[in-house]
Amino acid sequence: MKIVITGGGGFLGRRLAQALLQRNALRNHRGELESLDTLVLFDVLPAALPDAADTRVQTVMGDITDPAQLAWVIDDRTTSVFHFAAVVSAAAEADFDLGMRINLLGTLAVLDACRALPHAPRVIFTSSVASYGGELPEVVDDTTPLTPQSSYGTQKALGDLLINDYTRKGFIDGRVVRLPTVVVRPGKPNKAASSFASGIIREPLTGMNAICPVTPETRVAILSPRRAVDAFLHAHELPAESWGDYRSLNIPALSVEVHEMLEALQRVAGDRPLGQIIWEPDAEIQRIVGGWPGRFTSQRAVRLGFQTNASMDEIIQSFIEDDLPSAEG
Amino acid sequence: MKIVITGGGGFLGRRLAQALLQRNALRNHRGELESLDTLVLFDVLPAALPDAADTRVQTVMGDITDPAQLAWVIDDRTTSVFHFAAVVSAAAEADFDLGMRINLLGTLAVLDACRALPHAPRVIFTSSVASYGGELPEVVDDTTPLTPQSSYGTQKALGDLLINDYTRKGFIDGRVVRLPTVVVRPGKPNKAASSFASGIIREPLTGMNAICPVTPETRVAILSPRRAVDAFLHAHELPAESWGDYRSLNIPALSVEVHEMLEALQRVAGDRPLGQIIWEPDAEIQRIVGGWPGRFTSQRAVRLGFQTNASMDEIIQSFIEDDLPSAEG
Repeated sequence: MKIVITGGGGFLGRRLAQALLQRNALRNHRGELESLDTLVLFDVLPAALPDAADTRVQTVMGDITDPAQLAWVIDDRTTSVFHFAAVVSAAAEADFDLGMRINLLGTLAVLDACRALPHAPRVIFTSSVASYGGELPEVVDDTTPLTPQSSYGTQKALGDLLINDYTRKGFIDGRVVRLPTVVVRPGKPNKAASSFASGIIREPLTGMNAICPVTPETRVAILSPRRAVDAFLHAHELPAESWGDYRSLNIPALSVEVHEMLEALQRVAGDRPLGQIIWEPDAEIQRIVGGWPGRFTSQRAVRLGFQTNASMDEIIQSFIEDDLPSAEG
Repeated sequence: MKIVITGGGGFLGRRLAQALLQRNALRNHRGELESLDTLVLFDVLPAALPDAADTRVQTVMGDITDPAQLAWVIDDRTTSVFHFAAVVSAAAEADFDLGMRINLLGTLAVLDACRALPHAPRVIFTSSVASYGGELPEVVDDTTPLTPQSSYGTQKALGDLLINDYTRKGFIDGRVVRLPTVVVRPGKPNKAASSFASGIIREPLTGMNAICPVTPETRVAILSPRRAVDAFLHAHELPAESWGDYRSLNIPALSVEVHEMLEALQRVAGDRPLGQIIWEPDAEIQRIVGGWPGRFTSQRAVRLGFQTNASMDEIIQSFIEDDLPSAEG
């Protein structure tokens, strides 16, 4: 089987690639277990190979809105597509045209490439907590209407609706996973409004200071990268019947306030010297993040076997294990 | 002030045009009362002039997805746009590409033409009961999530989200009116899945037989053309503050079963000879229409002064008065 990951050079794309290569046998578009022979990482930037010796992996650089490139990458051998390519929240807010182009027109182009195949491929689309907003109930669940308050959230909600309609028409076998904020991301801060939520754990652990643009009482719904990758695989492997007619699902999250994240950091860090938190309020970030649901759940996801993190301590511990090897070794 | 109606050659576009010309003084984009000096009816088909002697009206034939044509029609003098142009429900289901092109890309092109203006014009977008679907509560209201079960409904839900985001960004001053099925439409049947709901009243009143593709117990949420036009004008005239952050609203509807519509027809027709109803079940029409909410309301719309019809008898009576003049005279 052949699997394509758009945004395959990104953090979650690379993590997923490793997990797919390790698992090797996955359900194809007919629901049969098949071994993975080709994994394409499609990205606008050069994607680092997870393992240069693994001949199953190809990296392709290209433009997600170009139908010709997509038709070449998403060819008749493609059984599944993980569509992760996106302009993140604060970037889509700052550059409206770029966000619309990549997040809406890019998604349309991917869906149309999938629709052109002789079979209906499994398509896993990452939506986001950002597709909720406005006056929200205390706990956001699968019955809460999508009323986003950012362009990124709007574009994710558009993709969500499109995946459902393309699935209903039989063009694809789509599955939408609405992710909470993924914490802790390794690497440098990015233009996601939620970037700080990783930064305030990651930077102190490497001895650097971190800027926190929101108040300590800001509540965020989070999920570790490990659990996010588990969710992608689980979303892919579930049979179409389990998903039923409605193909969108909130991935259950851990709900924490920022100060609780920092308290957990103190606990888990132990003797490690920690960088400082610099409180630098940013009204726009506070507005965007404060508008997202702080409590985010789904009875249906729990029933279908999606799992969340037990504690903030566990999330930090898995970051230390997965992404701070030098500090451990 | 200059007002543009896309789909201005259609039934509701023409009705609205007459009402706008009659009212003459409307709120411009600054909220000030101003007299209407130019009304453009933009349509893919030649639009009949409501009154050939009225020099305020222009008709323009063009393609709603063509940015150059739109930029010429929606120019700097344009204070308001009523965006009605759409491929209707059964047609969008039958021709997916056409529906996506007109209903999604056309809406995007209209919004981008509006965004290019030096001011934020008032934009009234007609969404639909069809943007609801799946497992619905007994009464659909403003808090019910949009989970459409047709491509038309999906495309209307996409437009709804886009209008809200363009408004939030300050590009337009958008207002989305989600209409129930408008009954009784004059003229010939069209490709809307709900076309029968007008046909079973209109055809018998003109002595013709009408085909009814759904069961007598099918419940539909309906609104008369008069009340629909009232809703467009009211949506336009309300100040932005009344709309607040969330710019979408269900227009309250009369909820009736098909057999109740026919009983009202018997009552209102009196001595008129009536054509017959021919029951010809159509599974696809039943599926689409049966998936729409039969009860459709909005506390907020009522609070904002939107009105619905008192009875089916009133709806039929207003059709006789407005659209059967020859029979009356």
